Amino acid sequence: MTSHAWNFMTSFLTYETNKSVVVKSWSVGIINRLVQLLIISYFVGYVFLYERAYQVADTAIESSVITKVKGFGKINSKIMDVADYIHPPQGEGVFSIITNIITTDNQVQGTCPEKDTKFNCSTDEDCEKHLDSNQANGRITGVCNTPVGYCEIEGWCPAEDDKKNTTTMAEFVNFTIFIKNSIRFPLFNVSRGNIQGDNFKCRYDKLTDSFCPIFRVGYILNELQQDVEKLASEGGEIGIKVEWICNLDEALDSCVPRYSFTKLNSPFEKNKVSKGYNFRFAKYYKALDGTDFRTLHKAFAVRFEVMVTGTARKFSLIPTVINVMAALTSIGMGTVLCDLVLLNCIKGAAQYKEKKFEEVSEAMIRAALTPSPGSQLSVK
Amino acid sequence: MTSHAWNFMTSFLTYETNKSVVVKSWSVGIINRLVQLLIISYFVGYVFLYERAYQVADTAIESSVITKVKGFGKINSKIMDVADYIHPPQGEGVFSIITNIITTDNQVQGTCPEKDTKFNCSTDEDCEKHLDSNQANGRITGVCNTPVGYCEIEGWCPAEDDKKNTTTMAEFVNFTIFIKNSIRFPLFNVSRGNIQGDNFKCRYDKLTDSFCPIFRVGYILNELQQDVEKLASEGGEIGIKVEWICNLDEALDSCVPRYSFTKLNSPFEKNKVSKGYNFRFAKYYKALDGTDFRTLHKAFAVRFEVMVTGTARKFSLIPTVINVMAALTSIGMGTVLCDLVLLNCIKGAAQYKEKKFEEVSEAMIRAALTPSPGSQLSVK
Amino acid sequence: MTSHAWNFMTSFLTYETNKSVVVKSWSVGIINRLVQLLIISYFVGYVFLYERAYQVADTAIESSVITKVKGFGKINSKIMDVADYIHPPQGEGVFSIITNIITTDNQVQGTCPEKDTKFNCSTDEDCEKHLDSNQANGRITGVCNTPVGYCEIEGWCPAEDDKKNTTTMAEFVNFTIFIKNSIRFPLFNVSRGNIQGDNFKCRYDKLTDSFCPIFRVGYILNELQQDVEKLASEGGEIGIKVEWICNLDEALDSCVPRYSFTKLNSPFEKNKVSKGYNFRFAKYYKALDGTDFRTLHKAFAVRFEVMVTGTARKFSLIPTVINVMAALTSIGMGTVLCDLVLLNCIKGAAQYKEKKFEEVSEAMIRAALTPSPGSQLSVK
Repeated sequence: MTSHAWNFMTSFLTYETNKSVVVKSWSVGIINRLVQLLIISYFVGYVFLYERAYQVADTAIESSVITKVKGFGKINSKIMDVADYIHPPQGEGVFSIITNIITTDNQVQGTCPEKDTKFNCSTDEDCEKHLDSNQANGRITGVCNTPVGYCEIEGWCPAEDDKKNTTTMAEFVNFTIFIKNSIRFPLFNVSRGNIQGDNFKCRYDKLTDSFCPIFRVGYILNELQQDVEKLASEGGEIGIKVEWICNLDEALDSCVPRYSFTKLNSPFEKNKVSKGYNFRFAKYYKALDGTDFRTLHKAFAVRFEVMVTGTARKFSLIPTVINVMAALTSIGMGTVLCDLVLLNCIKGAAQYKEKKFEEVSEAMIRAALTPSPGSQLSVK
Repeated sequence: MTSHAWNFMTSFLTYETNKSVVVKSWSVGIINRLVQLLIISYFVGYVFLYERAYQVADTAIESSVITKVKGFGKINSKIMDVADYIHPPQGEGVFSIITNIITTDNQVQGTCPEKDTKFNCSTDEDCEKHLDSNQANGRITGVCNTPVGYCEIEGWCPAEDDKKNTTTMAEFVNFTIFIKNSIRFPLFNVSRGNIQGDNFKCRYDKLTDSFCPIFRVGYILNELQQDVEKLASEGGEIGIKVEWICNLDEALDSCVPRYSFTKLNSPFEKNKVSKGYNFRFAKYYKALDGTDFRTLHKAFAVRFEVMVTGTARKFSLIPTVINVMAALTSIGMGTVLCDLVLLNCIKGAAQYKEKKFEEVSEAMIRAALTPSPGSQLSVK
Repeated sequence: MTSHAWNFMTSFLTYETNKSVVVKSWSVGIINRLVQLLIISYFVGYVFLYERAYQVADTAIESSVITKVKGFGKINSKIMDVADYIHPPQGEGVFSIITNIITTDNQVQGTCPEKDTKFNCSTDEDCEKHLDSNQANGRITGVCNTPVGYCEIEGWCPAEDDKKNTTTMAEFVNFTIFIKNSIRFPLFNVSRGNIQGDNFKCRYDKLTDSFCPIFRVGYILNELQQDVEKLASEGGEIGIKVEWICNLDEALDSCVPRYSFTKLNSPFEKNKVSKGYNFRFAKYYKALDGTDFRTLHKAFAVRFEVMVTGTARKFSLIPTVINVMAALTSIGMGTVLCDLVLLNCIKGAAQYKEKKFEEVSEAMIRAALTPSPGSQLSVK
């Protein structure tokens, strides 16, 4: 029993290592070392130092944004404050600052001609045809007001006339946007906020105050080289990017946001699609007799979108081991090239081949198995 | 000194290669080549061609969506336009089209019975008990209106009666939804928009016009085989998916969105949870005497959610090298199988073993170290 | 021709295996097996069992959230229901419950002093200077009301006095929040919903009912150890996290959400930034003569943010093969350590070296190439 265990241990506790041929040749030696140097440089320089493949990355950032806008302006000679020009009012990450409004007062339900497309008719059919050809999206069928000779539609009357002259809110460039952003990288359970100190009188400036979370609208528009007047009258879309690039192997304090601005319209610059941004909403009133009437607002606005992205990286054993193993295997693969040179290109290749390879053919094995005198297997 | 350097260079510029045994045997040879073929097929066919493991993927897509709905309809014989039926009005990626409304007019603060649950009482305690058992969520304590014999609650009166008959907005199937979506893959810094040409009279159709960004609501409902009447009266949730699957190794123009539609309610189909979608909002008015009154709206709506997802892939050296190394190592591992066959299964295995392995035991080393005549190490 | 093919096949169907030296030495054998054990333990225990590197992960979760709040409360002795205190009303994943309001009634456009900063002046210039120094964000230039001796601003008058006493809505702790969340992992095309059964009278409790999708506000605040009174009067931000950690190699039924709560303000606790949360909105009215007037609301609210995150994991061949190959290569690399020991540290190292390495120098090759008698290459 113990003898068996002993035998087993003896045969188990062995060590198998490859038998190697060491070629002392300058030419092949230089090629060998150069190839190794190249491979090591790639892994150390590119994979580990530049791409930091020893780290694992988390891009699934969790983010919560609250914004607060401050400032006063005038549209059509009416004073507007935050409650008037911000939609929606709750301070979300996506909000619009209304810079221009076309209002249509005292609309009531009834029938009236469309403002911009007075269409002559003699019968109702003319009007229906007209609406169809204009792709009226289910516009309630028009009727012909025969005494006047115009088509009339059912709806809120008078119809909107969006060619009206308006004065836009020029003051909005002086507004400030305060952004409060808290993020979390779930993979590493790291939470961060974008507010560093306690100075809330600062203004963001990419050179002098790049951590200040308060942005002057004019500064942003200037950075994007926006035509302010055009923007105010037609509306537009602007992205405020908050980028968190964090190396969690370093101090957590270096995990700070970087702000940048972008025209969200840029992928559409080649298209003729309306470059502006507007939306309609209504304020509803009740007359003394209980009739509903409303003021329709076609609001041209600058839509700000706070876009938070982030990548956190931290050392992780698994990619490190995988890449180290890939590196070592690659170095091993260097021998493939050197073998090619050694066994084919240089003088004495046949001799090297003879040294590297030992041949065993079935014939030899068969011979060895035949019980003949001198059956010892001998291979030169 | 130079002699030392020379020696060092000579011993440094060497090349070490494994000594191999070449077995010329058809049986093992065939197994060897078959295993290699299998491994190479897996890597070339599955890993590289099918899974494209030579690319790195970015799924952390940045997206900005603006929507615009057009169309007119009638609810309860009142004409509704965009300003009436879209909530919120700003053209966000998530919006609701109201298709049915139960209004409760002229509500003022006071006490009144709950509409649907008139509850007989003789004392206030009866009412409080009733509210508790109904899980009234902090409903302001009811009191017993003794002359009438009903429980009354404090609140906006009259209470809402949501069993009212209403006429839903059938026209909403003709509405159109315009989607403007700009995206960016931050890893590769590639921006794209979903609008190709300048034709804004198109209508999306998966067969004939799959790039058109304007969707007829009826088309979407048809694709999802929705019961339109039920949807209009109870509300519902519909997802419009915009999928960007981009291979950035190809031309950028081939990076286009693919639209599809989905019932967001589908994971809940087995539950008895209310299948519809509704929310309440109020319009506030002031009477001449300054009293506030309101109209409560219980709005049944179709909630559209534009969901943007995307994956961009691009060639990257690191995964390529890792996978090539895994491939080469795998091929090397093929020898493990062949060795098993060679050294155990075929005729002459012992002879092959003798050729492959050279044994060195401690005894032999010890013998070699003993300074005896003929101490040359000889191993058979 | 067939002879050629035959020759080619014979030389192609060979099998090359490394020639190995088997060292029968207990010391090296033990080191060898220990190193192998260590490497195998790391891969089996850490890489495969703990980190499950045989799976591929998808964190790009698609999510759709609908919320519904229920409950009644009183602010400033007015009854508030859902339509009054929820902003926005549509049941989105981010919503605010208003718990305190400072109202400023009957504001009309005009000029009046700022409520909290009555500033003495004698000329208009004094006022302009004062506004500038206060960073008035484009506040419409003040003028000096000389008879009264105060600066006046243009705007909605009377100005807001946010020092007013108010009574907050204490009842909001009894409100309930119903969360309906459907998700999808696009990589694996798996959809799930957060509602399990059909019991909608449940209340979430992390111990007794952790799958219930209905949350009592008081329960959440209690879990976060929030000061309820302070929260109600100043507002605040609370995150409701829905985490989907799914192992898709197991039964799909085990892919369920886990709820947790978080103070979104926590990254800012060290800053003096306002801890509360408030926003302003207005209700607009029309006087009989057509003048617009409004009621300004400064609403203090608890902002709830439903944050959905998730990771799904599923077996995938590619990372499995890569890691198995890394494992096998690592085991192979164990020989590097053993070789170091064998060839340098133990008794008889020189002899082992002689066994492992076979030297070929250029001189030998040259000698072999010279056609001399006894030119058979012989190496000791």
